[in-house]
Amino acid sequence: MIGETTVRVRYAETDQMGVVYHANFFIWFEVGRVELLRQMGFDYRRMEIDDGCAMAVVDVGCRYKAPVRYDEIILIRTRLVHLRRKVLHFHYELRRQAGGALVAVGKTVHVVVNQNMSPHPLPEKYYAAFAAALETHPKEHR
Amino acid sequence: MIGETTVRVRYAETDQMGVVYHANFFIWFEVGRVELLRQMGFDYRRMEIDDGCAMAVVDVGCRYKAPVRYDEIILIRTRLVHLRRKVLHFHYELRRQAGGALVAVGKTVHVVVNQNMSPHPLPEKYYAAFAAALETHPKEHR
Amino acid sequence: MIGETTVRVRYAETDQMGVVYHANFFIWFEVGRVELLRQMGFDYRRMEIDDGCAMAVVDVGCRYKAPVRYDEIILIRTRLVHLRRKVLHFHYELRRQAGGALVAVGKTVHVVVNQNMSPHPLPEKYYAAFAAALETHPKEHR
Amino acid sequence: MIGETTVRVRYAETDQMGVVYHANFFIWFEVGRVELLRQMGFDYRRMEIDDGCAMAVVDVGCRYKAPVRYDEIILIRTRLVHLRRKVLHFHYELRRQAGGALVAVGKTVHVVVNQNMSPHPLPEKYYAAFAAALETHPKEHR
Repeated sequence: MIGETTVRVRYAETDQMGVVYHANFFIWFEVGRVELLRQMGFDYRRMEIDDGCAMAVVDVGCRYKAPVRYDEIILIRTRLVHLRRKVLHFHYELRRQAGGALVAVGKTVHVVVNQNMSPHPLPEKYYAAFAAALETHPKEHR
Repeated sequence: MIGETTVRVRYAETDQMGVVYHANFFIWFEVGRVELLRQMGFDYRRMEIDDGCAMAVVDVGCRYKAPVRYDEIILIRTRLVHLRRKVLHFHYELRRQAGGALVAVGKTVHVVVNQNMSPHPLPEKYYAAFAAALETHPKEHR
Repeated sequence: MIGETTVRVRYAETDQMGVVYHANFFIWFEVGRVELLRQMGFDYRRMEIDDGCAMAVVDVGCRYKAPVRYDEIILIRTRLVHLRRKVLHFHYELRRQAGGALVAVGKTVHVVVNQNMSPHPLPEKYYAAFAAALETHPKEHR
Repeated sequence: MIGETTVRVRYAETDQMGVVYHANFFIWFEVGRVELLRQMGFDYRRMEIDDGCAMAVVDVGCRYKAPVRYDEIILIRTRLVHLRRKVLHFHYELRRQAGGALVAVGKTVHVVVNQNMSPHPLPEKYYAAFAAALETHPKEHR
């Protein structure tokens, strides 16, 4: 399963180089991740509220392939690529909607934590669904 | 009492017009407000933790007088200009450290709330200190 | 003419009070403003590139009516309420998509500037269209 | 040479998990990088203006070791760890000022570009100074 969603670049996301400031890609990754969960039938907001567990970010990376400019629509493709009881890895591929050029690839690693920020196993209902959605793929992006 | 602190403009705070994106001034106002409280002997972080009360923002405004650019040092002068048991008004004046030109003036209005976001009187220790620090001044900025 | 668009609250937009940080509303106002222009047939990005003119922000305000939380969908309604050759005023109304409750009202005032940040009359093609789209209304929000 | 500077966590930088949102660490890395350049006698702002060259970000990573909270002072230690004519690698170590606990390590890779975003050799005055400041160290953080 691959999550797909889009964002349109906001003026606030650009910097004086005339392109999107690099830290903002991680905010888009989060948008992609939450939409993948939604496509899987889950609501990350409810996971925090109902199950008292969060997906704390412990490792991230991004490689920038081309500058992204104001008002462009960017397609975010998100995959869950690794799953353990307390650890999840996601990969991201960002492309321009117009033309399809690859603009960035990234990854985020999460530890499932409870409300005290202590590691905590993912509740079973999520784990089973996540295992079914896991993307196994021959070629890593990073 | 006038709170004084500085911020240096970050690259992330600029936009493709080559100046600081306007929403960021409110983040600087918050920096100024917290430093004014610190000069008054209070720690806003502790107010939230120890007293379970927060200063929710209910009304803000900013007038921009001159563009602010990357790497400039901006002097933030913050004053408490109005105080009631559950409401506080702050005024802000932002100047370039180099030369002293006025770049923006602003205001924020806060309602004191408890952890359920319900209005709540400011604890007495804060109220007394705030009343002593209140700036009464003939000329309003806005 | 009233511009209508939506944003979904991003995790990055929340703060430790568990609500959207107040400065972010101005970023949403910008999203609303750009979409109003798009509904009028204009592309703000092209205005900057082709006509060398930008809408610099000179005055803003926002009144917060209710807290906005993570993952909510917010409806942004934007109107042009005042127009002169070099000055435009926009008003904004933000409501929860679910239920329709008003969460904020705001305004932004813009001066049309050229690439040197000097005031510059709005090109005629924009002025005519903006004049046609001007909202005259008996009751101001602020 | 190791660049050292501090940032105090702003309320705007926290999220509803009660900690600093992870993307913000890259903004702090940028603060650290610019201060390292300043300690080396350079002004990144002037590099863009006078020499028409910028350090475009092409690859970044961050590992989060401990949550960072509102109002903490974070010490940023920045080192240049790899240098070629058109490519620079920086490493970052973030620690709490109070107690010294490590909270994150990161890296950023930059390609020197001209105003058209095309790769461009670093001007000699920078290259010589950067070569002298290069940190060679046995143990990589990532």
